[in-house]
Amino acid sequence: MKLAIDAMSGDLGSAPVVEACKKFAEKHPDVELYVTGKKEELTALESINSIHIVDARDVVLMTDSVLGVRRKKESSMVKALMMARKDEVDGVVSCGSTGAFYTASMLFVKRIEGVEKSCLMATLPTYSGNSTCLMDVGANATNTAEQLQEFAVMGSLYSKLVLNKENPKVALLNIGAEDHKGDEMHQEAYKLLKDNDKINFTGNIEGRELLSGDIDVVVTDGFSGNIALKASEGAAILLMKAMKESLFATLRGKIGALFAKPQLYALKERFDYKSVGGALFMGFEKAIVKAHGGSDAKAVFNAMELVYRMVDLDVVGRMKEGLQ
Amino acid sequence: MKLAIDAMSGDLGSAPVVEACKKFAEKHPDVELYVTGKKEELTALESINSIHIVDARDVVLMTDSVLGVRRKKESSMVKALMMARKDEVDGVVSCGSTGAFYTASMLFVKRIEGVEKSCLMATLPTYSGNSTCLMDVGANATNTAEQLQEFAVMGSLYSKLVLNKENPKVALLNIGAEDHKGDEMHQEAYKLLKDNDKINFTGNIEGRELLSGDIDVVVTDGFSGNIALKASEGAAILLMKAMKESLFATLRGKIGALFAKPQLYALKERFDYKSVGGALFMGFEKAIVKAHGGSDAKAVFNAMELVYRMVDLDVVGRMKEGLQ
Repeated sequence: MKLAIDAMSGDLGSAPVVEACKKFAEKHPDVELYVTGKKEELTALESINSIHIVDARDVVLMTDSVLGVRRKKESSMVKALMMARKDEVDGVVSCGSTGAFYTASMLFVKRIEGVEKSCLMATLPTYSGNSTCLMDVGANATNTAEQLQEFAVMGSLYSKLVLNKENPKVALLNIGAEDHKGDEMHQEAYKLLKDNDKINFTGNIEGRELLSGDIDVVVTDGFSGNIALKASEGAAILLMKAMKESLFATLRGKIGALFAKPQLYALKERFDYKSVGGALFMGFEKAIVKAHGGSDAKAVFNAMELVYRMVDLDVVGRMKEGLQ
Repeated sequence: MKLAIDAMSGDLGSAPVVEACKKFAEKHPDVELYVTGKKEELTALESINSIHIVDARDVVLMTDSVLGVRRKKESSMVKALMMARKDEVDGVVSCGSTGAFYTASMLFVKRIEGVEKSCLMATLPTYSGNSTCLMDVGANATNTAEQLQEFAVMGSLYSKLVLNKENPKVALLNIGAEDHKGDEMHQEAYKLLKDNDKINFTGNIEGRELLSGDIDVVVTDGFSGNIALKASEGAAILLMKAMKESLFATLRGKIGALFAKPQLYALKERFDYKSVGGALFMGFEKAIVKAHGGSDAKAVFNAMELVYRMVDLDVVGRMKEGLQ
């Protein structure tokens, strides 16, 4: 197996990626890693047999315009994706800007034949602790019912293969539980999903149940999905922030917080969107994982493990079959 | 001023409505209240001069189908709305099912001339404590850019007149901050809102900032608005629930919770969607307020105060002018 790792585009620079690559190479000496970035920052990896350093003099910045990535051919991000394009690697990991990385993936990496639209998939932290996959979370501003059906098949296969769900429950994000709810596209998507025997469709789900953990794969158009993801994320973050401020506003609250610290900390971790990793790019010929911009070594390592698992389990190949 | 109050459709039956009407009549002896419901349940109101009991033998149940309301002409809900239709009252309050009450309002109450679509407006509890109005939250499954512009003008006027905001900040809910973000409809809505000098348009807002309290009026299509409202509501509810369970899982956590109780309770109240009241129906010739289904006497009273304020300030009349 061969993986390309973009070492430069994260908020914390190359240091956490270098550390993660070392650890990964120890665990998986059989996997060849192509690490793209400024070679002078990657000297610590030089002596490792399974690691190849690919010098890249440019960096895609978080502040760069999304389309600007087209002109950054010498960047660590584009060089990593170009290796995927040329079939030199099986998967790619980057901590760079989601918009730029996704745009570059669309430009340089082939879609699975027959897939109309690629998309972004997020894994949500939930109340029950079960992982809920939500897709599309914003790659597309509009989608057709057929595209939602593709998302459902891909998400279901991912949930089965990578998350070991036996018969993943699939639901459609909608504005009501009844089958006639929503606009024409969502009504049509409901019908297609209901009649598709490759998935275990359980009906519509409303925004309120999104974080319950009852459903394994929630399918949505990119516009609603982006709003749903960010609205729940925003509510969770602001509530935790308000709780902290509120507790520290009184002496009694402070004492309470001191006692409850381990529980409150665990809760924060549990609903932390960062801990879940980043987004997955679905529908491409290669496994592409976008780690969080602020990823530390552990988070980068987890993203590498995920892309390893996707390649090892041949998720892309299985999706090709599943979509036929 | 004359108001119709549906006494029967809430989860708690007529008792809280009777109590609220008594209190309201004491505070506003000049307002004539038409209370619709089973007269034998409303005897406590008989002796009050400003209260008229309108006997209604039927009740719209929470479990009734939304369209079933058409056949419930003898219900307390429809009788209250029919008085609005016949210009016998200036405003209506109900604690009944949102779907049925909204459908009945569309069937029986005139829209403001020139308003293409009526909508549902929710007031969100926010981090800063400022009230953010979000509309449409689900009356419509699709909307046009022109309709979003109408919502913005109505919401802005409401915020100015009822919530006393001097120059309410209006934003468009979208999947990115830049003006070209979103589908065609949202791009077009951005342009219309930017060029409209009746409102103080500040640009796009993402789901993550919805509960920050920075914006006074957030405009959205009914589909995304419903998803956004319910996703944030769901996240807040599940996080509070998880916190409670997590604290009570250990002795240390329990002690902490005991000390922090007042602060945690205040936080729960602050983010409680119920405490905000219900939804407002915008775009009708009458002031229509939907109190929460589980409203107690205080919540019903607050809803009555809100409809009183809307009539007193002639919000509907001012909207008519504003929309010209």
